[in-house]
Amino acid sequence: MEQQPNSNRRNFIRNVSLGSLAALSLPNIVAAATGEKKAHAKKVTLKKDAVILFQGDSITDAGRKRDNSEANNPGALGNGYAYLAAASLLKEFPDKNLKIYNKGISGNKVYQLAERWDADCLQLKPDVLSILIGVNDFWHTLSGNYKGTVKTYRDDFTALLERTKQQLPDVQLIIGEPFAVNGVSAVNDKWFPAFDEYRVAAREIATKFEAAFIPCQAIYDKAEKSAPGSYWTGDGVHPAIAGASLMAASWMDVVKK
Amino acid sequence: MEQQPNSNRRNFIRNVSLGSLAALSLPNIVAAATGEKKAHAKKVTLKKDAVILFQGDSITDAGRKRDNSEANNPGALGNGYAYLAAASLLKEFPDKNLKIYNKGISGNKVYQLAERWDADCLQLKPDVLSILIGVNDFWHTLSGNYKGTVKTYRDDFTALLERTKQQLPDVQLIIGEPFAVNGVSAVNDKWFPAFDEYRVAAREIATKFEAAFIPCQAIYDKAEKSAPGSYWTGDGVHPAIAGASLMAASWMDVVKK
Repeated sequence: MEQQPNSNRRNFIRNVSLGSLAALSLPNIVAAATGEKKAHAKKVTLKKDAVILFQGDSITDAGRKRDNSEANNPGALGNGYAYLAAASLLKEFPDKNLKIYNKGISGNKVYQLAERWDADCLQLKPDVLSILIGVNDFWHTLSGNYKGTVKTYRDDFTALLERTKQQLPDVQLIIGEPFAVNGVSAVNDKWFPAFDEYRVAAREIATKFEAAFIPCQAIYDKAEKSAPGSYWTGDGVHPAIAGASLMAASWMDVVKK
Repeated sequence: MEQQPNSNRRNFIRNVSLGSLAALSLPNIVAAATGEKKAHAKKVTLKKDAVILFQGDSITDAGRKRDNSEANNPGALGNGYAYLAAASLLKEFPDKNLKIYNKGISGNKVYQLAERWDADCLQLKPDVLSILIGVNDFWHTLSGNYKGTVKTYRDDFTALLERTKQQLPDVQLIIGEPFAVNGVSAVNDKWFPAFDEYRVAAREIATKFEAAFIPCQAIYDKAEKSAPGSYWTGDGVHPAIAGASLMAASWMDVVKK
């Protein structure tokens, strides 16, 4: 499995001069190195019979069969990172009797998760809830058809998680960072730096809610060193198999072994 | 990743008395320990731009979209072990520019592979050809609707591979062992010991053609120690996600790193 976060940490530490390190306390050095403070080190623990729910937009949806509501059903899990993570989970934790669901829906922004949250999250009573949302919250503003801002994203996402924690106080959260691969098809310079604010918001929300965090942008940035962006994502937004596979590996890294 | 073959080897060596070991030469000890002689240790090497083809029956098919003939397309790879192996391959070998196809078809026996071999194998010119076939060659005899024997299976499979090697002399072969999990739904004592002969035949054919070998039966037998058979396969024949994930991991074990 890829050890993206560790490599990033190593690269950072290599790049920081001793002088600047001396000015920081050790916890701050680690926080600066990971760039993610507490959220990054957070892991989830799988208890027996745990229910694991993947939520999000098309990246999570990945062509899942919506007419099947069984747990651990390959069609119902789609063919993206959620399915690949499920395959690793079910292989590695056979004694846990895990029940894994994917309820991602293509095109969703945060407010659309909120609209279907009772049926598609709270009623399933997940022990582990993994959410990757945000690229549409930005992308759909480019056409002028959606007027939400990064404040809308941050406020809606915060409200959604507060509502979730109220109903499911013991839920363990995993938040995936929205990402975009510049120069591949749908993604160009017009996205930046505005899109980066959504990444920052997701990371801050992960910290606030003590969620484990999947640093997707770093995953793709690093991946581009070994193959072009178009190898990892078809259009800069949707993962190719290779990208989904990297994401699933990083998702597995936040599960306590 | 699971290291099934090595564990089996270790268990065997632990169980063999020193006296019986002394009567064998070292290569024979290793061969006896693996139970698979040369075939088991065989690995495939991935060259740049390699074409990898998965062939077989429903276990390989796994709901793939037949109207899509693109390489590395998630829908076209189905959602079984072939897709999971493809996801690992594409993640681990980004510099190889691999082209991966799945042409498994549900219900197929060896003679049906032969009927569609020109279009669904030879024309794709695979560098690595992975075949898992045989459960239907036995299973369909139980209803009396198919009259083939294990000799039919062995002869047809041998002829298919001879034809393949003639057209593609450099192809690297991977052969998966047909498997059945007794006591789960479709599989019961009536299958045995007759079904085991198909496993033996597949293994011998792998040795004869110097194919890498995936010992699927051992994978499922070992898996039953950590969760019931029905966790790994829904009906004793078709892998659940967990079973497909184990198979993909073993498939990856025969790829030279």
